[in-house]
Amino acid sequence: MAGNLNGSMFVAGTAVAGAGEVFRAVDPATGTELEPAYAAASAAQLAEAAEAARIAFPAFRRTAPEVRADLLRAIADGLDAEPDLVDRVRAETGILPERVAAERTRTSNQLRLFADVVTEGSYLGLRIDRGNPARVPLPKPDLRHRFIPLGPVAVFGASNFPLAFSVAGGDTAAALAAGCPVVVKAHEAHPGTSEIVGRIITDAVAGLGLPPGTFSLIAGHTPELAVALVTHPAIQAVGFTGSRRAGLALTAAAQRRPVPIPVFAEMASINPVLVLPGALSERGPEIGRGLIGSVLTGFGQLCTSPGLVFVPDLPDADALVEAAATAVESSGSGCMLTPRIAESFAAGVARLESVPGVRRLARAATEDDISALCTPTLFDTDLETFLEHHEELTGEVFGSVTLLVRVPGDLTEAVRNHVLPLLEGQLTATIHAEPDDHDAAAGLLDELELLAGRIVFNGWSTGLEVNDAVIHGGPFPATSAPATTSVGTRAIERFLRPVAYQNVPPALLPRELQDDTRGIWRRVDGRFTA
Amino acid sequence: MAGNLNGSMFVAGTAVAGAGEVFRAVDPATGTELEPAYAAASAAQLAEAAEAARIAFPAFRRTAPEVRADLLRAIADGLDAEPDLVDRVRAETGILPERVAAERTRTSNQLRLFADVVTEGSYLGLRIDRGNPARVPLPKPDLRHRFIPLGPVAVFGASNFPLAFSVAGGDTAAALAAGCPVVVKAHEAHPGTSEIVGRIITDAVAGLGLPPGTFSLIAGHTPELAVALVTHPAIQAVGFTGSRRAGLALTAAAQRRPVPIPVFAEMASINPVLVLPGALSERGPEIGRGLIGSVLTGFGQLCTSPGLVFVPDLPDADALVEAAATAVESSGSGCMLTPRIAESFAAGVARLESVPGVRRLARAATEDDISALCTPTLFDTDLETFLEHHEELTGEVFGSVTLLVRVPGDLTEAVRNHVLPLLEGQLTATIHAEPDDHDAAAGLLDELELLAGRIVFNGWSTGLEVNDAVIHGGPFPATSAPATTSVGTRAIERFLRPVAYQNVPPALLPRELQDDTRGIWRRVDGRFTA
Repeated sequence: MAGNLNGSMFVAGTAVAGAGEVFRAVDPATGTELEPAYAAASAAQLAEAAEAARIAFPAFRRTAPEVRADLLRAIADGLDAEPDLVDRVRAETGILPERVAAERTRTSNQLRLFADVVTEGSYLGLRIDRGNPARVPLPKPDLRHRFIPLGPVAVFGASNFPLAFSVAGGDTAAALAAGCPVVVKAHEAHPGTSEIVGRIITDAVAGLGLPPGTFSLIAGHTPELAVALVTHPAIQAVGFTGSRRAGLALTAAAQRRPVPIPVFAEMASINPVLVLPGALSERGPEIGRGLIGSVLTGFGQLCTSPGLVFVPDLPDADALVEAAATAVESSGSGCMLTPRIAESFAAGVARLESVPGVRRLARAATEDDISALCTPTLFDTDLETFLEHHEELTGEVFGSVTLLVRVPGDLTEAVRNHVLPLLEGQLTATIHAEPDDHDAAAGLLDELELLAGRIVFNGWSTGLEVNDAVIHGGPFPATSAPATTSVGTRAIERFLRPVAYQNVPPALLPRELQDDTRGIWRRVDGRFTA
Repeated sequence: MAGNLNGSMFVAGTAVAGAGEVFRAVDPATGTELEPAYAAASAAQLAEAAEAARIAFPAFRRTAPEVRADLLRAIADGLDAEPDLVDRVRAETGILPERVAAERTRTSNQLRLFADVVTEGSYLGLRIDRGNPARVPLPKPDLRHRFIPLGPVAVFGASNFPLAFSVAGGDTAAALAAGCPVVVKAHEAHPGTSEIVGRIITDAVAGLGLPPGTFSLIAGHTPELAVALVTHPAIQAVGFTGSRRAGLALTAAAQRRPVPIPVFAEMASINPVLVLPGALSERGPEIGRGLIGSVLTGFGQLCTSPGLVFVPDLPDADALVEAAATAVESSGSGCMLTPRIAESFAAGVARLESVPGVRRLARAATEDDISALCTPTLFDTDLETFLEHHEELTGEVFGSVTLLVRVPGDLTEAVRNHVLPLLEGQLTATIHAEPDDHDAAAGLLDELELLAGRIVFNGWSTGLEVNDAVIHGGPFPATSAPATTSVGTRAIERFLRPVAYQNVPPALLPRELQDDTRGIWRRVDGRFTA
């Protein structure tokens, strides 16, 4: 497989080897190093990529929407056609082949969705308030509003979605759609996957005759390199998915710049679930099985994995708990993304286990031959223990583990008065409710929407529909920018800035703001029209 | 006049005296202190206001849109009806009575505009992607998106718009419209004006039976008090208009919080103007007079005052310069907002004057009997001097002063290659162009939209139309949040956050997201509909 890989990064259209420290990917299943070797970008190579993006920006931002759509579709087609991709992803990440295939489809579909977003055009936020030179006492000016791209965007690949949140992932798709050149810092855990995808994008950029600086991919694994990228003067915004510590470090670096820039960092979330009594009684075992199905997805290495579940301490709870425990026990252990993530997971599970009053209900069979091992584990505890030890029990443990909390008495009241004040901002919150729970659910919904970016009813938070209405975001620390989403069509808005044009002569107006342009949704004198 | 003033602030519906340090407003025309005395809020009073806002939020955010519209209209009516307002504003700020009256109208109209925004409802950003349970391989969930208010907002009154950007100004109107309680920190230069307006809002809140914590007004004049407000855990966002130093200090304080919050700070701008050769030839004297009219507006104490004007160094330039110089000389000096602002202005003018190669072309007659004196002044220089001394010449001098820069050769090329790279982000940029300038203007427009939030053609940047399409914002340091505007209907978006609802039962959905709600613009399955 390494035969197709050269250990390259791509700087403005050219495949080059990094001039910095050498590293290799590790197969997390076996712990063995993978060929070829990669080397980190030097400071000069990083600067070259950022400068090329700066130079590419004026031409790239003025490309016709159809050209950017063609670019996104060419990348999607390249991903779909690449024969070596699934194997390399699997080798570098331990993700099961069928999940890799599904992630590839999601990634290419996401690129095509953004191609549609660009050509549909409503993301431009067109607003026209027509003037009236005859108004007294002062003439009314003609004012027209649109969004323009911010400039070069730095994207940090995430370890857990080596395709969907990495080199050609959502941030890259949204930034290119917006008209922003992209410099990706490859995640050091999947450099080969990154090289494959980076070549596809580089070829697509060249194939369309776009400025070479439209895309660069640099390698590296140190915090210093990450900070150097975020603080390069050419970079105007940052997309990041990863740990809280890294996200906060990048945000702080961006704020220390002479000209601060926005960092859209999607960070930590434990994704609480509330099971109301009617739902517990009606379908407790189904909820128990569904929960574990969600927790096992991707071996829990998803931002939306449900890590904390509140269940009424009623006799019906036993069936839910039993179904969940059985599901865990009948599942297998699996391979995590990296040895370090597996270590963190084991430490997190041990930390939960060490809290007095927390019981391990079940765990999956261990498989000794996996290097970066995830052994899915189910815990439970009572509300009193949870409240007393909430600091240890509300931190995200990345991996297949979840904690059931049995709540005596009125779950709604207990959650509202005692639990929610202890929780930090979340990507998601889930309610299981039947019609006789609806009064209680309505009150909880009111509170949960202040806590999370997406509220799920009678389902699971894992599995994200990518469309106009979805939000993958939420109050801090779920993201550093709670007004935005990193998934769905609104993700493009992160890389845009509004400009108003006052009394600009019609011939000089941007084409989409001219009176005779039709077909793009716009707001004219207060009314939407296409 | 002081008979109607009690030296009060308003904490959650109650008029109280500050428990901190005592201070008085100063009449900038005479330098004399004004009665009554005011006292800064103590830490406990500040906390009481912020806590009351926190408590008010759940009920206030759920008020019907019509109720918030009624609140905004009641405040507008109260402002319009208040007999003592104009005199007190004039006494505290030196602003001419006719300008105060115009600002009052702007402020009450702005409140009424936001009342319309609330009831019109498109600010809610409704998006519905309907589900399909029959989709294979996975059912498609129903997803619905809306914006919800962030929570209590801290608003800092600005000195230069004691009504329009102060207690009941744009930030307060936008936050209340959004459903966010407001804690205003009154500007220390106009405490009496603030008391009058604070009483109007407090009465309006009480009159509608809204939670008292919906609005508080606290007094104070120290940076410590400002930081204490921004870092209070109940506060969720900050609106600020003022100096770069203060804006950056508040932004930094907000970022140091355990849960960082957004600060929407509108700061410095010098608002460059470019006069192209055709416009110079066609209407040089008119441009010269228009420029000075704009520079004299509010004695230059506007964020949008044009401080830097690039003119081709052609024989036609003399007529523009002469008209501008005559307009300055035939104007009078005037009163600035505060003695400190007058000192800064004098220092700024002296700094310009001290640059070798900068000539004072004209200044208005001095009036010795004004304490906080502004003597409007016109400078010019050549491009070479400007480029050599750009650091001294591109800083905002708050007040009626502007610098003409004579540009030899091709103005467009010189501006693009030499001037624009030296300029920081701006609120506005202005081009004067006739049809034969359009080719050059098109190229400049492309560059200026990267520099500024609003581009003005053949007019002046002062005077802001408040509507859907306007942007009062721009790249840093014009604002700390370039994706937003502090004027116009989009200002409400600053105080909102999106939430997605997945498979929420119809009866539990927010009313505006239910299928049978009509009349609000929304995006359903990709199409806008009302």
